[in-house]
Amino acid sequence: MNRSVIAIDAMGGDFGPSVVVPGALQAARECGAKVLLVGVESAVRDALAALPATERDEELFEIVPASQVVEMREKPSEILRTKKDSSIQVACRLVKQGKADAIVSAGHSGAAVACGMFILGRIPGVERPALATILPTEKKPVLLLDVGANVECRPHHIFQFALMGATFAQDILGYENPRVGILSIGEEEGKGNSLVKSSYELLKLTQDINFLGNVEGRDLFTGNVDVVVCDGFVGNVALKLSEGLGSSLTHVLKRELLNSGLLPKIGTFLAKKAFKRFAKVVDYAEYGGAPLLGLQGVAIVCHGASNVKALTSATAMAHAYVTKGTHERLVKAISANEELTRYARSV
Amino acid sequence: MNRSVIAIDAMGGDFGPSVVVPGALQAARECGAKVLLVGVESAVRDALAALPATERDEELFEIVPASQVVEMREKPSEILRTKKDSSIQVACRLVKQGKADAIVSAGHSGAAVACGMFILGRIPGVERPALATILPTEKKPVLLLDVGANVECRPHHIFQFALMGATFAQDILGYENPRVGILSIGEEEGKGNSLVKSSYELLKLTQDINFLGNVEGRDLFTGNVDVVVCDGFVGNVALKLSEGLGSSLTHVLKRELLNSGLLPKIGTFLAKKAFKRFAKVVDYAEYGGAPLLGLQGVAIVCHGASNVKALTSATAMAHAYVTKGTHERLVKAISANEELTRYARSV
Repeated sequence: MNRSVIAIDAMGGDFGPSVVVPGALQAARECGAKVLLVGVESAVRDALAALPATERDEELFEIVPASQVVEMREKPSEILRTKKDSSIQVACRLVKQGKADAIVSAGHSGAAVACGMFILGRIPGVERPALATILPTEKKPVLLLDVGANVECRPHHIFQFALMGATFAQDILGYENPRVGILSIGEEEGKGNSLVKSSYELLKLTQDINFLGNVEGRDLFTGNVDVVVCDGFVGNVALKLSEGLGSSLTHVLKRELLNSGLLPKIGTFLAKKAFKRFAKVVDYAEYGGAPLLGLQGVAIVCHGASNVKALTSATAMAHAYVTKGTHERLVKAISANEELTRYARSV
Repeated sequence: MNRSVIAIDAMGGDFGPSVVVPGALQAARECGAKVLLVGVESAVRDALAALPATERDEELFEIVPASQVVEMREKPSEILRTKKDSSIQVACRLVKQGKADAIVSAGHSGAAVACGMFILGRIPGVERPALATILPTEKKPVLLLDVGANVECRPHHIFQFALMGATFAQDILGYENPRVGILSIGEEEGKGNSLVKSSYELLKLTQDINFLGNVEGRDLFTGNVDVVVCDGFVGNVALKLSEGLGSSLTHVLKRELLNSGLLPKIGTFLAKKAFKRFAKVVDYAEYGGAPLLGLQGVAIVCHGASNVKALTSATAMAHAYVTKGTHERLVKAISANEELTRYARSV
């Protein structure tokens, strides 16, 4: 296995370097990657100094200074124009220049998408990169895309999301011949809005996808589908709804178990035991990051509220993406379906 | 309080009269409504005969025969054309003819929407009736609409959904000045797809709605919004996703608590106690039915898998809708915003 080099947006996330740096280093130790910690040098050094010496082996990392910090309220277009020395822009340029293989950012996700698009550029033939998220379920996780990079989509975008999602699921989630569905409001062909109906037609035509047809909201959690495609508006609503309902139910359960009255100590103990396994089903840190598929390079975007575990997972995902050659297979899947995409774009 | 007359589609639902009849009669007893049990006479009589004598007081009901039965696989247009003596069509005509005040159906929901539209007709000025569902949350329930009657919407449809939803939430859920939000992918104005952005503009203009702005998927469960509007595609995905995730998490929790190993009996007991309160948060039977808003009459549509409790709640909702004069207030809310709707339709 090659040693991958991952550019880390060390200033990203609600907690900045104090969470990003230990997460990245843990992944570097575990999977043999080298991490480039991109950010304000003093802040990165402070985060390193806070770690035990055994956790900051100098072999694992390099600091790449970036003087500007992106604020969450800034518009992506402004960040692109005025923050050329921000950690996200510097990290993207490292990949562009071949000095790193991948980017991991828990910062402003709009900025990550914009910098990815404009600094790295798209895979030839890809019109819209898609943000994909891995949803935990009772059985195997499901890849859902797009979850917010493209608010309005056309059928050939959805078609390419399916091609890219299936490739990612095969390589990174290890699914053989992943089953792909379109998120709709009825399983039968012909159910859904016009975008769904036209996308369905296209997905039926390609040889390269194990196409199940339409799936419904409830199928996201049954484990009967591996990759689910939709436009970024619907996907983002679905993702935030799942997070919200998951955390709301977790909260209710915690309260009910703690208030259960009977034998409080045993109750609490049981609660902890069962609770941990239950919470794992709604734990988005398990998979850490959302790959941004379709760029000329590997980019993993993390939730702003990511913890160390999420950053570690995201960095490990970037490493796997690079060392398994997933990007190259993704390029191939897109070009093998170039004619069909061109046809779809024209209708 | 007037005595309302509710036409019940007795043949609807996965379990037909055996569930619908006891549910309707229980509501009739509890809230003083009279129910017209519409369906195949022998089947309705069998369901009645199965009940204890005290639960089938003849004052409570009347049987209205309808010879045809709708199959779940039939298309709404076919049902309209070929099943003129089906329970749903007969029930709708009872309302049209003034012999009943409301319809409750757990049958084919597409057929209920189509028969409602074409037999009852729409409130003058309403272009698209909307199906609204009541989502349980940690705090107060939230009204979400449209959840499937309109797959493609325009801004003035969303605007009318908001007017109708707010009226319903005020009268039936008892919310004073209900807070209305548009389901989107960011709270700031300007976030969302073009439908959301244009609907936002309209909702800002009316005086009649306590408009919060955009809300996200996670806000559906926090109790910080009372009415959430969206197109029927997004709403249906959101509804089915909530049901799916709720039941998946309930299932995981049940398994974890039962398998918890330690002191199995106490564990099971605790599990039951806490479990029931937990499950209530994802129990859609609590509210029973989804009102179809915007018709010239009151129609409550229930889930096919509805149990007796859900049918009772739905019938009670229909009774409240009638006796509180909600329909009349809904008509008023629509006509008070006629100019704004006309303007929106033209742009």
